[in-house]
Amino acid sequence: MAKAAGVVTAGVLIIGDEILSGRTQDTNLGDIARRLAVHGVDLAEARTVPDETAEIIAALNALRARYDYVITTGGIGPTHDDITADAVAEAFGVALYEHPDILAAMQARWGGEVNAARRRMARIPEGGELVKNPVQGPPGFLIGNVFVLAGVPAIMRGMLEDVGWRLNGGATVISRTVLVEGSGEGEIAAPLEAVAKAHKAMSLGSYPFFGPQGYGSNLVLRGRDADEVEAATAELIAALTAAGIARITRVEA
Amino acid sequence: MAKAAGVVTAGVLIIGDEILSGRTQDTNLGDIARRLAVHGVDLAEARTVPDETAEIIAALNALRARYDYVITTGGIGPTHDDITADAVAEAFGVALYEHPDILAAMQARWGGEVNAARRRMARIPEGGELVKNPVQGPPGFLIGNVFVLAGVPAIMRGMLEDVGWRLNGGATVISRTVLVEGSGEGEIAAPLEAVAKAHKAMSLGSYPFFGPQGYGSNLVLRGRDADEVEAATAELIAALTAAGIARITRVEA
Repeated sequence: MAKAAGVVTAGVLIIGDEILSGRTQDTNLGDIARRLAVHGVDLAEARTVPDETAEIIAALNALRARYDYVITTGGIGPTHDDITADAVAEAFGVALYEHPDILAAMQARWGGEVNAARRRMARIPEGGELVKNPVQGPPGFLIGNVFVLAGVPAIMRGMLEDVGWRLNGGATVISRTVLVEGSGEGEIAAPLEAVAKAHKAMSLGSYPFFGPQGYGSNLVLRGRDADEVEAATAELIAALTAAGIARITRVEA
Repeated sequence: MAKAAGVVTAGVLIIGDEILSGRTQDTNLGDIARRLAVHGVDLAEARTVPDETAEIIAALNALRARYDYVITTGGIGPTHDDITADAVAEAFGVALYEHPDILAAMQARWGGEVNAARRRMARIPEGGELVKNPVQGPPGFLIGNVFVLAGVPAIMRGMLEDVGWRLNGGATVISRTVLVEGSGEGEIAAPLEAVAKAHKAMSLGSYPFFGPQGYGSNLVLRGRDADEVEAATAELIAALTAAGIARITRVEA
């Protein structure tokens, strides 16, 4: 993504064979994107890689060099395929150590005896700090500009609560939606493009839908300047109307 | 992904600001993964990029060099942000041309007059061939090892029907699932790892769940040799039982 001045960016790294096999539907990407937007951080790219150390390291190094922040999901449980902490430590060239607070919480929970598999989850890279897990199980961690979170959606969302306040975000993005019904994108394209060209600092997109209930498109206008977003929305409605499109609804979202 | 002999791989490139903003939930990745598996093709990596030419080209070139096949979704409509065909042509160093069959179908549908926005959708790269769209709108295309499909899920799924027969797949992957209830991953990890180590050609994963209805994990065994998958499944059940885990159900999926 071409990085404009004042824009803060993030990349997401989704780790897990189960996503790539189609067994599990990822929903974390959208949750992260919406949370980042609140803090003025643009999600610029996402990659999904299998549970393989070399793949995780290569993707992580590419993303952390390029974006202000990286958020990883998955691979921090106790089983043999949970290799994210090891891979992140290797990417940063540091060792893992057993964090005393995590181990103490595990001992409290399991009565002093913590088996080897669970102890693996107590390890974080040297130089890392903890990301609280208010849901269940051990915490995530932050090292450098990389937040390492769980893959289970409910746990990942809980951990995000401890991520947001640490982000130095840019101006937040404001979006407006104009719903067009009964017209196809082929009719919408020209007026939409005219408005997009007049507002190059903004992003205008068309997201068509069709089905038994009818067809049309949601036109989404995004920008950082509230006055410009407002003006462009009015211009778009005027341009659509001038093009003979009748069923236009402004949606406040 | 370390490519084993006889394994055929694919990468997926998801194109669209709407996925990265969290506005739209991608479901195409899972649909593609499951369809590829039927044809013996492993989905090895996925990337999601914004509607920006340079980003699309960089990701496409990385994926097409590395995997046997690439499938892209999104950005082939008529609006100004639909730049996938242009980016793919540029990545291959060829020009776009108006395909006569697509233009003829458009003229038949819209009575001879096709506006400029719609004509954009009639363009495919030189050397490409069409991928049928049985649902709605113009077709996708194949160039080199890259299939370029629509982003709207219903249309994308329709186009996949014209993709599968063109894939030279490897041996298909067989999977078995062992459901464990009332035990956490911390107890499951050791027996699971023992079986995983004894079957290095296979992939064994643990996918935990928890909620009001209880907790546990789905243990998924995947491999290309039916006898080995069967043997490993029996070994895993025996190892879990030996570890004192009681609620084990073999799921035929």
